[in-house]
Amino acid sequence: MGSDMGRLARPLCGIIPPMVTPLEDRDALDVRGLERLVEHILAGGVHGLFILGTMGEAPSLSHRLRHELVGRVCAQVDHRVPVLVGIIDTSFVEALSLAQKAAEAGADGLVLPAPHYYPAGQPELLEFLRHLVPQLPLPAFLYNLPNYPRAMFDPETVQAASDMPGIVGLKDSSTNMIYFRHLQFLMADRPDFALLMGPEMLLAETVLLGGHGGICGGANLLPRLYVDLYEAAHARDMARVQTLHRTVIELGRTIYRVGRYESSFLKGLKCALSCLGICSDFMAEPLHRFRGPERDIVQKYIEQLGITANGLTVPG
Amino acid sequence: MGSDMGRLARPLCGIIPPMVTPLEDRDALDVRGLERLVEHILAGGVHGLFILGTMGEAPSLSHRLRHELVGRVCAQVDHRVPVLVGIIDTSFVEALSLAQKAAEAGADGLVLPAPHYYPAGQPELLEFLRHLVPQLPLPAFLYNLPNYPRAMFDPETVQAASDMPGIVGLKDSSTNMIYFRHLQFLMADRPDFALLMGPEMLLAETVLLGGHGGICGGANLLPRLYVDLYEAAHARDMARVQTLHRTVIELGRTIYRVGRYESSFLKGLKCALSCLGICSDFMAEPLHRFRGPERDIVQKYIEQLGITANGLTVPG
Amino acid sequence: MGSDMGRLARPLCGIIPPMVTPLEDRDALDVRGLERLVEHILAGGVHGLFILGTMGEAPSLSHRLRHELVGRVCAQVDHRVPVLVGIIDTSFVEALSLAQKAAEAGADGLVLPAPHYYPAGQPELLEFLRHLVPQLPLPAFLYNLPNYPRAMFDPETVQAASDMPGIVGLKDSSTNMIYFRHLQFLMADRPDFALLMGPEMLLAETVLLGGHGGICGGANLLPRLYVDLYEAAHARDMARVQTLHRTVIELGRTIYRVGRYESSFLKGLKCALSCLGICSDFMAEPLHRFRGPERDIVQKYIEQLGITANGLTVPG
Amino acid sequence: MGSDMGRLARPLCGIIPPMVTPLEDRDALDVRGLERLVEHILAGGVHGLFILGTMGEAPSLSHRLRHELVGRVCAQVDHRVPVLVGIIDTSFVEALSLAQKAAEAGADGLVLPAPHYYPAGQPELLEFLRHLVPQLPLPAFLYNLPNYPRAMFDPETVQAASDMPGIVGLKDSSTNMIYFRHLQFLMADRPDFALLMGPEMLLAETVLLGGHGGICGGANLLPRLYVDLYEAAHARDMARVQTLHRTVIELGRTIYRVGRYESSFLKGLKCALSCLGICSDFMAEPLHRFRGPERDIVQKYIEQLGITANGLTVPG
Repeated sequence: MGSDMGRLARPLCGIIPPMVTPLEDRDALDVRGLERLVEHILAGGVHGLFILGTMGEAPSLSHRLRHELVGRVCAQVDHRVPVLVGIIDTSFVEALSLAQKAAEAGADGLVLPAPHYYPAGQPELLEFLRHLVPQLPLPAFLYNLPNYPRAMFDPETVQAASDMPGIVGLKDSSTNMIYFRHLQFLMADRPDFALLMGPEMLLAETVLLGGHGGICGGANLLPRLYVDLYEAAHARDMARVQTLHRTVIELGRTIYRVGRYESSFLKGLKCALSCLGICSDFMAEPLHRFRGPERDIVQKYIEQLGITANGLTVPG
Repeated sequence: MGSDMGRLARPLCGIIPPMVTPLEDRDALDVRGLERLVEHILAGGVHGLFILGTMGEAPSLSHRLRHELVGRVCAQVDHRVPVLVGIIDTSFVEALSLAQKAAEAGADGLVLPAPHYYPAGQPELLEFLRHLVPQLPLPAFLYNLPNYPRAMFDPETVQAASDMPGIVGLKDSSTNMIYFRHLQFLMADRPDFALLMGPEMLLAETVLLGGHGGICGGANLLPRLYVDLYEAAHARDMARVQTLHRTVIELGRTIYRVGRYESSFLKGLKCALSCLGICSDFMAEPLHRFRGPERDIVQKYIEQLGITANGLTVPG
Repeated sequence: MGSDMGRLARPLCGIIPPMVTPLEDRDALDVRGLERLVEHILAGGVHGLFILGTMGEAPSLSHRLRHELVGRVCAQVDHRVPVLVGIIDTSFVEALSLAQKAAEAGADGLVLPAPHYYPAGQPELLEFLRHLVPQLPLPAFLYNLPNYPRAMFDPETVQAASDMPGIVGLKDSSTNMIYFRHLQFLMADRPDFALLMGPEMLLAETVLLGGHGGICGGANLLPRLYVDLYEAAHARDMARVQTLHRTVIELGRTIYRVGRYESSFLKGLKCALSCLGICSDFMAEPLHRFRGPERDIVQKYIEQLGITANGLTVPG
Repeated sequence: MGSDMGRLARPLCGIIPPMVTPLEDRDALDVRGLERLVEHILAGGVHGLFILGTMGEAPSLSHRLRHELVGRVCAQVDHRVPVLVGIIDTSFVEALSLAQKAAEAGADGLVLPAPHYYPAGQPELLEFLRHLVPQLPLPAFLYNLPNYPRAMFDPETVQAASDMPGIVGLKDSSTNMIYFRHLQFLMADRPDFALLMGPEMLLAETVLLGGHGGICGGANLLPRLYVDLYEAAHARDMARVQTLHRTVIELGRTIYRVGRYESSFLKGLKCALSCLGICSDFMAEPLHRFRGPERDIVQKYIEQLGITANGLTVPG
């Protein structure tokens, strides 16, 4: 791995949006939309970009398209911020192959979930890491997936893994805040190990109590909002934290709750980006974009909340 | 209900410890231990006392013993702080009977979980409240039980219930912080409705972002620690919050994790109180006190952390 | 316990309906309906009667009403078949008290779930039984509750418990057929220990492969159907088993699936009994009876399936 | 799809073992072991062979190796029995690609799980099938995965899917027997639609009550045992069913329960095959083969049960 380690700050701090993947069809990128989306996000002052995560529909995409996406994004970002690439696959060999493509394309880091198909014990997860990590060409963040409580790295497993060169942090999307506090306690003597929060509704409290930042889905839409909230929390500006946190929750009560199924968050986000003219809202199976009635509701929320492609307009 | 409503502050704020129930046997109180424990907790400056909750082993106790406990505690506290009484029973009639005993004994409020045996829909929970609440002789807090995700009040159900005279707040032990943030958002225009956190590891972030306080089990052992943390968070004294929060997490990594089963938290707490000479650690079936080896570990942690009956000794 | 052991066949075999509790109000029995229901069930040739289980809404009823029910049912049955009484309570002391009332009223056996509020380990469950069983005045069946996977007796725990005098069988409502087969294998050398199935949809296969019978809720409505199916399965009359099994499944696809919530089974059953004029369909909180539209659907199914108070009419 | 439909019996009945994948390394087949294993299984008189399922570690294998395996197995089987190929991938495009490779290699059918990464609603699953199935080059069986209750096809979804040309049956590994009975009832007018059971402990009751067969993991080791049990159940030879069923359960109480983790079934099976000299027990990450102590226990069970490469030796 060697010199590549140097490109990532230790710990990586701030807002690293988990980019949605603009699609024209199930196996075709929305190339213009992708370019607009990357610039939209970077204009918000984010501290990195995470592609091919759960928000990026990675598990639904072909490996070919994933490779194309990594290439395009790395070229366009061109080292303005670090690019992290999710290597979500149930196969060791395929995950490693994704990692190699990411390195070739010039990415800065990897995001690596526990194997999630077979229920593995913690010693098996640790052995998996001992086999895989030395072969990874880039530094990697562990990843507790949303909705997979059985594929979580125990705090003690994270602690053991943090001694492997190449493991530089963790993204926790478990929504289990007690787990996160345990983990912070255990890792207190490793200030270079990044502890990053998945769900954006927990960003404020994460940073106020010592977490390093967030992988906030909403930062696809309103990158500046999350950067501002991160900075306010980091600066302990409590009044500002309260105001911005409230806006984050309001998004969660509106745009993310339009549909009937658990994927409403992702659908609402892609729909809103489409309403703002940033990129297509096509989704790969098994998900599908909102149809007319849901889109109308999202459009209404966008106006109500004052969301524009340039951020939130302050009413009055 | 009438005039009793007046005795409780609206909203009820601060630390209201969920008292463990000192037992000599499965149907006999440790009367001396109970007296010592009440005084120990009150000496910590707490803002209320909650008896007969999950930490109080209420579901394991006979109704006779529960009545005796309510009487003894109310008499001893003698209105120095408000006393809240859990009415945990799967039967409407039995829950109401517990509520009446609490009122007769001079308690100040009730804590009311959703019926948890049958999986009820949210409209059924709301109807349950519409039938029960008008008959309650004291104001009541809703209660999301730990370990019963199917018996949780949805945020919208809480909002509807908050319009019933007599429902004055909610205790959330679900550990689901995203739920709690949704709830706070919905209740933003009801500053008199108390939103209280169960798990003590989430106290700091709860209060920093607008929650009203905590029902912290550890406050049986170290009441002052939690009162101090509440006050620091309320005053936005971030340096002090960090220090005290860290101590709270440390308890969670030590005394509460000695046993093999999920009840370790409760067993460790009762064991520590016994080690300090405050009360008996007898537990009603199906739980049982720690045996020798576990007790030795708890004793070692007590010394290591500097815990005494008078609070934490500062090392150095 | 002594001589009472003798009244129950070892093993208890056949159909033992879990009787619903006819109610006029939340704390008042429908006394005439109760009498009609008991006679209706006994007329079907059942091998026992189980009261105060999950189907009997026991957890929703006051202890006073439970005692009244036990008294009335035992008096009316008058030893024509064995009466089993559920002692579902989270408290050791209250469960024992229920057991004593059952013995005083002349019941023949008890049905005892694992304590289900606190998540107990298997050694804790076994210790619970070691404390409680010697004090029980009647022989008891262990009971794996529906919907409480964490309160299940492991096969090895059942095996250990079966050596305690007074434990004479198990009712399994877990719906986990692999669990049941493991249990049968372990208990193969104890042909006197009854292994009884809860969900009626699994009755046929239970008996075909060596189980002793079923606690079938539908036998409140159509007792003869389940008795016939039990006998056909016991006699290995496969053609008859197929026909009757199909009717059982059809009930599960119609009358039990009318409502929106998980309690539809219980609501549909009480509603059908009311439609046939056997007893009231009042339900104690948190459940409630079907309203008009759902009742109309149940009524339609009753006609469609040819259900009468005297059993199924054969079409044609 | 056309003429390929004709090669599979409708419905497909009997025992179709889910073959384990003999590996020399994480990305290398144990080619000699594979040949021996295929012949070992076919010698047992099985009615088909299912490769690349959960038992075959498909999610842990590279696509390259999966393609190699399909080619080798189809060539070796050479149409002696139908070969079914699992297309387990979270991506529509990748699943389709696997299907095409299977068709090119000469396989007879596909086994298709619901997309299991994102929690999809039933209408989304049906839409997924409406998009994918017309593009499949071979007839397909739906597949309810083990351990993924959220990725199950509802009975009504199966019914709707069964009208699509190309969907010819379902393999249910959910272990939910009530679900299976509902499904059989709904599909009663479609006798050409195969309903196959995953867990072998449920094979006897599946076939006795009208199911079409089983995808029994244990048939890797003892193919004849499961063929005999299927035939006995089909012929309603209840005495023989009881004896053979008991042996199946005994395997489940011994060889499959040696390890600590949920993957013990798969590890025990591969270990036993290795002990008998049939193929390697190497497992791809995140699983790993049993080490010495566990292997010794498996070896002991093999002797105790009288298992040889030629089947069960009858003691005495």
